[in-house]
Amino acid sequence: MDKLDIDKIEKIIADRKKAYKFFATASTVFNSFLEMEKLTYAEGNISTKNKQLIALGISIYANCESCMECHIKEALNAGATRDEIIEAIGVAIEMGGGPATVASRFAMNVLEYYFNK
Amino acid sequence: MDKLDIDKIEKIIADRKKAYKFFATASTVFNSFLEMEKLTYAEGNISTKNKQLIALGISIYANCESCMECHIKEALNAGATRDEIIEAIGVAIEMGGGPATVASRFAMNVLEYYFNK
Amino acid sequence: MDKLDIDKIEKIIADRKKAYKFFATASTVFNSFLEMEKLTYAEGNISTKNKQLIALGISIYANCESCMECHIKEALNAGATRDEIIEAIGVAIEMGGGPATVASRFAMNVLEYYFNK
Amino acid sequence: MDKLDIDKIEKIIADRKKAYKFFATASTVFNSFLEMEKLTYAEGNISTKNKQLIALGISIYANCESCMECHIKEALNAGATRDEIIEAIGVAIEMGGGPATVASRFAMNVLEYYFNK
Amino acid sequence: MDKLDIDKIEKIIADRKKAYKFFATASTVFNSFLEMEKLTYAEGNISTKNKQLIALGISIYANCESCMECHIKEALNAGATRDEIIEAIGVAIEMGGGPATVASRFAMNVLEYYFNK
Amino acid sequence: MDKLDIDKIEKIIADRKKAYKFFATASTVFNSFLEMEKLTYAEGNISTKNKQLIALGISIYANCESCMECHIKEALNAGATRDEIIEAIGVAIEMGGGPATVASRFAMNVLEYYFNK
Repeated sequence: MDKLDIDKIEKIIADRKKAYKFFATASTVFNSFLEMEKLTYAEGNISTKNKQLIALGISIYANCESCMECHIKEALNAGATRDEIIEAIGVAIEMGGGPATVASRFAMNVLEYYFNK
Repeated sequence: MDKLDIDKIEKIIADRKKAYKFFATASTVFNSFLEMEKLTYAEGNISTKNKQLIALGISIYANCESCMECHIKEALNAGATRDEIIEAIGVAIEMGGGPATVASRFAMNVLEYYFNK
Repeated sequence: MDKLDIDKIEKIIADRKKAYKFFATASTVFNSFLEMEKLTYAEGNISTKNKQLIALGISIYANCESCMECHIKEALNAGATRDEIIEAIGVAIEMGGGPATVASRFAMNVLEYYFNK
Repeated sequence: MDKLDIDKIEKIIADRKKAYKFFATASTVFNSFLEMEKLTYAEGNISTKNKQLIALGISIYANCESCMECHIKEALNAGATRDEIIEAIGVAIEMGGGPATVASRFAMNVLEYYFNK
Repeated sequence: MDKLDIDKIEKIIADRKKAYKFFATASTVFNSFLEMEKLTYAEGNISTKNKQLIALGISIYANCESCMECHIKEALNAGATRDEIIEAIGVAIEMGGGPATVASRFAMNVLEYYFNK
Repeated sequence: MDKLDIDKIEKIIADRKKAYKFFATASTVFNSFLEMEKLTYAEGNISTKNKQLIALGISIYANCESCMECHIKEALNAGATRDEIIEAIGVAIEMGGGPATVASRFAMNVLEYYFNK
């Protein structure tokens, strides 16, 4: 795996941590968002795994790289397989056309990153 | 259920049918898209039901009403429950903020439409 | 003012009320979103009026009609003038180009609606 | 052609006229936008016809219905054929996926409207 | 502050300068856009400071990093405080959900950059 | 030309190649997308050159950098001139406002890259 791609993923993870610390003290709106996030991905009528796959599809559609990193990691933690991640990417491609095929490249790298780890 | 909302849903269904007929003869790109669509939602490593829920999340995020109608109907056909649809809407709200809460109103109407039918 | 435009605005208001009732019992995520919303627009370092104008700019950029209705109404309630609303629309046009000039038409109707009331 | 679809197109045209009148006196930003618009679509290294087809592709991608009406009408005025419009829609579908196939339905109606006229 | 983040901000500033030079001679549309920009942010019924905060909200929603750099700098130049910037970010988070919390990280870095300067 | 900008363009090209290899074996949806892509840009009622310029306009609007690289390269291969590329960028600026002026900077770099080659 290309070192630049690994560095990019690890910078995203570090930046998220830094931002959470900053906004946790600076913004009540951000803290309120975190509570909404927790409620959203809890086990429910849809399993956490499948909720994470929904969020992954939206992340690719929205081309949000940090979201892809987060929702692929959490989907894998909740038991998703490599093939499930790839099919969720497929749904995003059907919904997002050309730009979604580009966004999928980062999802591919994240997948490789967590499988090599 | 408000007659205006029923009429809107039924016009979407009629418009889709009309457009499919038009583009099927007029556009090879459109026909190619339909093949991609079939492959995307086939039973696979992710079930058709869960793929439809991913597509529903993206549809709400993208505020595509015809997409919502289609993917809610297909999710229900594939066995999704009312509560699963509502939790998929929840993921879209977390990812899409205020405008997603607005788009969710149409999803709510579609859900009501198919449950009253 | 065109009756169709008045009806559209009033249907948006009625739909919001209906959806709030539905999601309030059905979705903990939605309830959590409402709390975040309250925190966001409270008087703070930025006044409620100016926060509503920020949200109006985003609403036009995102072409979210219900958001425009809500944030224009709340901006006016918080003391915004007609000229301030129009300048906030101007910022959205500079940021959103052609499609934002189209979205601004609905904002114009909402403005007229609340001034004729 | 469905009367509802004709009415929708004609309301868009009337709304545009009304908004131009309103913003022309109310907003210097809007007037400045109109100058930019004129420069953009003038005959140049790319013909007006092909510029309008570029704008049509973006309009479908952005799901801006008034933009579609405007850019299809202007493309036809500049000599575009029905088949050229349909191929421009094809590019938007490849770039925009599922939601672009939905937006294309309105483009189809506008095309029919100007050919029946 | 991370050197990579400083370099990124300074590259954005250098790239903007380079592009302005290039497009100023190459594109009448671009020059026309610059005139619209000047009109948009002039002191008016809304102060320049509050217009910049509206533009900042849209910039985060649109995930436009160069826009964030520009509108935070201009907001600070017009007298905005650190706490006002953070509350404008809050509005963008409420309107933009998860991806807006990610975009806010760059806004945070820009804020830190101009306060350390 | 800045080495960082050259490296960025060349990494996009390398990443595309890598992703095509990966998804070609992993995803039937992706392969189906590639067929749609071929049909979309074939010579037709609109020339390949002008189709590529439509796609370029959408790429800038969508801020898809890999799409810009691809569609500028293919437009040049199909005979587009530097001035035509710049006018297509102009259409995207009119449709996309401030964020499109930012996206245009990358298009400018790609243009320079292929002219210096």
